[in-house]
Amino acid sequence: MEYVKDLAWKPGMTVPDLMDQLGSVGFQSVELARAKDVIVRMKKEGAKIVLTFTSNMVTSGLRGFFAQLIQLGMVDIVCTTVGGIEEDIMRAKGEQFPIATYQSDDISLHEQGMNRIGNLLISNESYVRFESIMAPLLAELYTKKNRYPVSEFLAEIGRTLQDDHSFLCQAAKRHIPVFCPAITDGAMGFQMFMFQQKHNDFIIDVVKDFANLVSATYHDEKKGIIALGGGLAKHHAIFGTLINGGCDYSVYMTTARVESGSMSGATTQEAKSWGKIKDQADAATVIGDVTILFPLAMIAALEELHRDGIITP
Amino acid sequence: MEYVKDLAWKPGMTVPDLMDQLGSVGFQSVELARAKDVIVRMKKEGAKIVLTFTSNMVTSGLRGFFAQLIQLGMVDIVCTTVGGIEEDIMRAKGEQFPIATYQSDDISLHEQGMNRIGNLLISNESYVRFESIMAPLLAELYTKKNRYPVSEFLAEIGRTLQDDHSFLCQAAKRHIPVFCPAITDGAMGFQMFMFQQKHNDFIIDVVKDFANLVSATYHDEKKGIIALGGGLAKHHAIFGTLINGGCDYSVYMTTARVESGSMSGATTQEAKSWGKIKDQADAATVIGDVTILFPLAMIAALEELHRDGIITP
Amino acid sequence: MEYVKDLAWKPGMTVPDLMDQLGSVGFQSVELARAKDVIVRMKKEGAKIVLTFTSNMVTSGLRGFFAQLIQLGMVDIVCTTVGGIEEDIMRAKGEQFPIATYQSDDISLHEQGMNRIGNLLISNESYVRFESIMAPLLAELYTKKNRYPVSEFLAEIGRTLQDDHSFLCQAAKRHIPVFCPAITDGAMGFQMFMFQQKHNDFIIDVVKDFANLVSATYHDEKKGIIALGGGLAKHHAIFGTLINGGCDYSVYMTTARVESGSMSGATTQEAKSWGKIKDQADAATVIGDVTILFPLAMIAALEELHRDGIITP
Amino acid sequence: MEYVKDLAWKPGMTVPDLMDQLGSVGFQSVELARAKDVIVRMKKEGAKIVLTFTSNMVTSGLRGFFAQLIQLGMVDIVCTTVGGIEEDIMRAKGEQFPIATYQSDDISLHEQGMNRIGNLLISNESYVRFESIMAPLLAELYTKKNRYPVSEFLAEIGRTLQDDHSFLCQAAKRHIPVFCPAITDGAMGFQMFMFQQKHNDFIIDVVKDFANLVSATYHDEKKGIIALGGGLAKHHAIFGTLINGGCDYSVYMTTARVESGSMSGATTQEAKSWGKIKDQADAATVIGDVTILFPLAMIAALEELHRDGIITP
Repeated sequence: MEYVKDLAWKPGMTVPDLMDQLGSVGFQSVELARAKDVIVRMKKEGAKIVLTFTSNMVTSGLRGFFAQLIQLGMVDIVCTTVGGIEEDIMRAKGEQFPIATYQSDDISLHEQGMNRIGNLLISNESYVRFESIMAPLLAELYTKKNRYPVSEFLAEIGRTLQDDHSFLCQAAKRHIPVFCPAITDGAMGFQMFMFQQKHNDFIIDVVKDFANLVSATYHDEKKGIIALGGGLAKHHAIFGTLINGGCDYSVYMTTARVESGSMSGATTQEAKSWGKIKDQADAATVIGDVTILFPLAMIAALEELHRDGIITP
Repeated sequence: MEYVKDLAWKPGMTVPDLMDQLGSVGFQSVELARAKDVIVRMKKEGAKIVLTFTSNMVTSGLRGFFAQLIQLGMVDIVCTTVGGIEEDIMRAKGEQFPIATYQSDDISLHEQGMNRIGNLLISNESYVRFESIMAPLLAELYTKKNRYPVSEFLAEIGRTLQDDHSFLCQAAKRHIPVFCPAITDGAMGFQMFMFQQKHNDFIIDVVKDFANLVSATYHDEKKGIIALGGGLAKHHAIFGTLINGGCDYSVYMTTARVESGSMSGATTQEAKSWGKIKDQADAATVIGDVTILFPLAMIAALEELHRDGIITP
Repeated sequence: MEYVKDLAWKPGMTVPDLMDQLGSVGFQSVELARAKDVIVRMKKEGAKIVLTFTSNMVTSGLRGFFAQLIQLGMVDIVCTTVGGIEEDIMRAKGEQFPIATYQSDDISLHEQGMNRIGNLLISNESYVRFESIMAPLLAELYTKKNRYPVSEFLAEIGRTLQDDHSFLCQAAKRHIPVFCPAITDGAMGFQMFMFQQKHNDFIIDVVKDFANLVSATYHDEKKGIIALGGGLAKHHAIFGTLINGGCDYSVYMTTARVESGSMSGATTQEAKSWGKIKDQADAATVIGDVTILFPLAMIAALEELHRDGIITP
Repeated sequence: MEYVKDLAWKPGMTVPDLMDQLGSVGFQSVELARAKDVIVRMKKEGAKIVLTFTSNMVTSGLRGFFAQLIQLGMVDIVCTTVGGIEEDIMRAKGEQFPIATYQSDDISLHEQGMNRIGNLLISNESYVRFESIMAPLLAELYTKKNRYPVSEFLAEIGRTLQDDHSFLCQAAKRHIPVFCPAITDGAMGFQMFMFQQKHNDFIIDVVKDFANLVSATYHDEKKGIIALGGGLAKHHAIFGTLINGGCDYSVYMTTARVESGSMSGATTQEAKSWGKIKDQADAATVIGDVTILFPLAMIAALEELHRDGIITP
């Protein structure tokens, strides 16, 4: 049996030093340490790793970290929503997102052409420039073929981006599929709609991409999920692995709770009833803001994997 | 200026009696009363009303209420996720969802073939029977045409259902579009994938459905959103109306909060920075579980609209 | 086994009609219906009932409802915090609390002498008048005796109030003890401190009041708790009944969650490990805002108890 | 204007390295970095610092960290609840608290004599031994005098403890007052009640301790609050400083939200309406679990203060 230990600061503490102590503090710090351990094990034991995140995390600086994780070989499959795709492209093309506050005057922001996402902002100009990038890009991709499964379309986009901090760019480089079933739910959808008005045979084939999802993992291989936030991205990753027998390792980090019965708040425990994760799976659910929880747990995991020669920066 | 009033029970109170008092209690009860008022006004003033809900709400008994609201003419457009589509079909075909507890033994449930969603269950058999319905239905629809925008595909399904408590059935009857951009993210996607393996020219055209979303509302008409829960369904409704100038009326009910910067937790206030709702829009955000908040506010609104001859049961 | 039922509006629905349907909807509506049932049973089966609430609920219009519940014989013991005491006295003396919004300009409010509590306000004048009431009242009580256990002190105050909507007044009338261990944590404490500066032998005897708490219930009688919100009030009620063998019935309504390990978020399940509630106790935990949950469940319970002749309005 | 920056792992990152990057990530990570900055400034600018925490944090390993912060001179005043007092004494006397899970079988735990607090446990034996310590200690303190303001009583207890990881011990050593207005709300209250049964003139003078609270800060000095969690401890610290003109620096870390109007969820923004913190105060509110947020922000602050020679480990 393990016992609570008194946390103590020592000058010069590294992130793993802190993480080690948090494992004996209690409450969510213990769950976070468990999450770190699950991540280390899923990598060490050769699982195929699915990373899911919502679009607000791509608005945040986690976006570059996701790209780095792909580069380090920590991710084999990505699931996200279209806002995340759009904002990764914007950032790769030089757009900057200002840091503001949660107590902004939203009517005044609207007049300034600034769109608020919590304490971050995206300007109308960023969206305008995004549109001016997408229109010719769609035309160019259409010259190659007229029918794209989503992940193949996103790989094509990734290949056009010159930015190591872009997850689309890194995923394309390493042939990691990026799944995004609701690809039309945003400015991207509007561009595709405009393009299809003139080119009626332009097809985004979401059904074909389901075949890619099914073949992205195998029944006989170990599988792990790191689900950051909830929603469609989380469900798609879980559903994709469920088809191939469910996950062996599972880490959920979210602010959503179980009480509303939502997918976003469903725990790794609830997932067992579905076979979404195996009965004996190695799993952790941590409640809290991903912008703090994930860097802390993942950096501690990376240090451990680096120390043991599993990854190389 | 309004002041807090002491709540008092009187025998025989109706739902509107309670709602009237809640408007002067404080905290979320005041916000709920505001939500009820916004719903009444959006209907009385002739707005086109978009209703969005997540799939867990269709697992719950709200599903029949959504169907009734469509029947009553309270809804002009629906946005949801594919789980909601699947479960509406299951229920229309006679499946029953048991009520359980949040503290279930999930490994035991898995052995019994029961899948848990909060304190509700769906059996594996229900999914198996769903598959046996979808396979011939896809074949039949394919004989009519091979390329379906999502909402047209869902209208076809709705027309096959004989259940007044089915929102797909009621929406089909009244020619109300049901949008569901991530139609492949679930058992439905698996069925479509199996079908496309044999019929490669079978296409679910998500881009074309964006055209339907754009033309579902007009710039010059009043528009209102009732967003229950968050995620894709909420975003899609907001994005669809934003393209046509933003909403005049807006009610959000959710357990998600602003602090993570997620779409799910974004308030009607934050929406103003985007022009998602107009600066002067009539809006309310209520925090809490939709299975309690929505029946209470909506039934009080229905009684008021009924009293004033706007709706007829 | 019970199954989800489709919710349906019928014109003229009463609160019990709605509550009956909510019991088969799912998620928190099911838990709320369970809470209503537990309340009905604890009353029918003759349990001694402890009601706990936090001070913000007294700022709200629930304050008059608490008074009514005491008058109806639904409450045998009250636990609250000193803010609740102060605001009940203010309201009894004619103070009014304005309804505002969560998005107020707090610096401007400060300049106007208005203090914000969520979407409610209390003016500085209300506090000033409270002080002008308390000073002579303390002097008067001191003429009777110099050492008061808290609940006896509060009974004396209650006897001076002429307001049927005051819970202190109703509790005093019916000889229901009101426990408030941190009586000094607010404006009341400041007044007591000023008084003691001149009368050093003036004592508020919190230890003596523990004896009153211990003797407020018996080991052999049935005991029930209705805990609204968390904090000190909830803990004190639980601790008081734990000493006498724990509760037979328990209803918790709160927005706090389990994950932080706080008392406020602790469930009726966790309480069983402590013997705070008996292993076989009849218990329900509902997550959400008390200003909506409690009137809905309690009014439905009152109607049922009234129908069965247990209470008389 | 500041912009979002891509987070990047570099091997060997220290806690301040991580914290620096988090300041440009977005959402709660930005608020956490602001909290760290406010802590650094309140110390550098000579503010008197009030630290508040709830009892569950003392159950956790934060307990030893609080003691260390007192030792380092980072804390001038402590406010907590009686559970925190009891558990600090237990740990100082050698009790150990096992780490468990949130999904424990609570009835089985009850049979084993283990009491659950989230994912931590306290045994019945620990409580029994606590009682056997308190009974003679009360007798001994009573020989010195019969009437104790709470903070003076706690200083006496602190002086009997021989444990550098005890915050009561460290506070006593450094003459830091520990305020706990609801001292009777727990096992401590039971012991005091038993003792008073035999010694009727034994008084815990909560009114007198209000005088100590008032004189613990001055109107003319700078004041800062670090409020971990909510409830009584937070309110008492805020009220105590409000009397002397309000705070100049304020950091709130909590899982509670604004929507219920509770003290626990009230933000530093709402506090401005009350003058609880000054209009121009340097303030941050971070939402999340304190066992993760506080070590991260505080250790980064300590490293910065240590680097600049303000504190010495």
